[in-house]
Amino acid sequence: MTGWVAIVGLGPGAENLITPEVTQALAEATDIVGYIPYVARIAPRDGLTLHASDNRVELDRSRHALELASLGARVVVVSSGDPGVFAMAAAVLEAVENGAADWRDLDIRVLPGITAMLATAARVGAPLGHDFCAINLSDNLKPWSLIEKRLRLAAEADFAMAFYNPRSKSRPEGFERALMILQEACGDARPVIFGRAISTPEEHISIVPLTDARPEMADMRTMVIVGSSQTRIIKRSGAPLVYTPRSVAP
Amino acid sequence: MTGWVAIVGLGPGAENLITPEVTQALAEATDIVGYIPYVARIAPRDGLTLHASDNRVELDRSRHALELASLGARVVVVSSGDPGVFAMAAAVLEAVENGAADWRDLDIRVLPGITAMLATAARVGAPLGHDFCAINLSDNLKPWSLIEKRLRLAAEADFAMAFYNPRSKSRPEGFERALMILQEACGDARPVIFGRAISTPEEHISIVPLTDARPEMADMRTMVIVGSSQTRIIKRSGAPLVYTPRSVAP
Repeated sequence: MTGWVAIVGLGPGAENLITPEVTQALAEATDIVGYIPYVARIAPRDGLTLHASDNRVELDRSRHALELASLGARVVVVSSGDPGVFAMAAAVLEAVENGAADWRDLDIRVLPGITAMLATAARVGAPLGHDFCAINLSDNLKPWSLIEKRLRLAAEADFAMAFYNPRSKSRPEGFERALMILQEACGDARPVIFGRAISTPEEHISIVPLTDARPEMADMRTMVIVGSSQTRIIKRSGAPLVYTPRSVAP
Repeated sequence: MTGWVAIVGLGPGAENLITPEVTQALAEATDIVGYIPYVARIAPRDGLTLHASDNRVELDRSRHALELASLGARVVVVSSGDPGVFAMAAAVLEAVENGAADWRDLDIRVLPGITAMLATAARVGAPLGHDFCAINLSDNLKPWSLIEKRLRLAAEADFAMAFYNPRSKSRPEGFERALMILQEACGDARPVIFGRAISTPEEHISIVPLTDARPEMADMRTMVIVGSSQTRIIKRSGAPLVYTPRSVAP
């Protein structure tokens, strides 16, 4: 049996947001490797071994997946959202680069998924309809000073911004500082979207002006999207629609 | 019959990258509205009317979709990739905001899809595995000076960058200028990925150092991803893997 590794995105939560390509890989797998809550989304079946591990052990998990594949297993590494956006694909490739020489010759595929910022944006309209950036607000793996620098430059560039991991348990004050920087740098009431657990039964969305955004509106299951200076809200009888126009006047 | 509008993403091209949610909406539709090559991806069937229109008529197309829905049709507006990323969702919402008052009360949904940058990134590894930005390089709807400003600020922020519409027919020199700005601002040989028609039979990928990137390597079907200063290439017997590590040293 020839082993392989597929690093796949399960999307934000709903079954109907998983691509058929990923469903097919899951059906062919002998082993599923991933963080506990993501592995819990995979239905057990005969011939499939589930390997669930805790958070913050991404490199150990990656090496485990590569080792299994080098022994002939068909391994699916599961991420939520898209595996290439603040998820497992970079971790597995880091393990490849620094690991056993024969891991480089493994069949390694990355299968894309619906990442949280796209799912959240879609729920409220099209806040990412113009140029935007995506920033991981966790400072576990990078200095906070770099996050601050990027926030200020992104505001100056007038990007809409999508924030992953806005509030870590270990450093809850980071998001508060991020909001203060944006309130100062942007100086307006542009919309901020808090999308929690999008497409799951726990889904919750709130839209507030930047001037009213508060850190406790987000937790680790929340995607935060901050509009650009051009982002607009359409009021109507139901939930409002938020979009960033395609055009910027000269 | 109660009409609705669903603005959906068909993904980059392959059938197995279309979400089941989108497939379901297509199955329920009475009318499909979109740009000619995207409507051509929809299989005709009894009870389904296909309305294909040319490029650059996004607002007319949006108003047509809203008008059909207000008359009771179940309308799917098709985009490639994700409808919220440089695609039809923002155009439809602009038409809603500036259109007939009763359009605001229509059932309007945006259904996400696999956008080109995620599909291209997945094909080569994880070049968007750390903070990144997405910029539409077409200056049809915004001044070129704003694009230049964003390129310089994105380089200063050390974002990986994904470029949509790198080379328009009407302004082919824009991408050449963009590359010159990046070569000057970044001053290194970081990888640039040209992903053309990803997941289709015409798929073509090339990876070159920024110093060797040339404008003719892209056309309108190409997604261009420029790595950050941290992006790495893993050489191996097959196609190389490209990833941006999760960590930045303090």
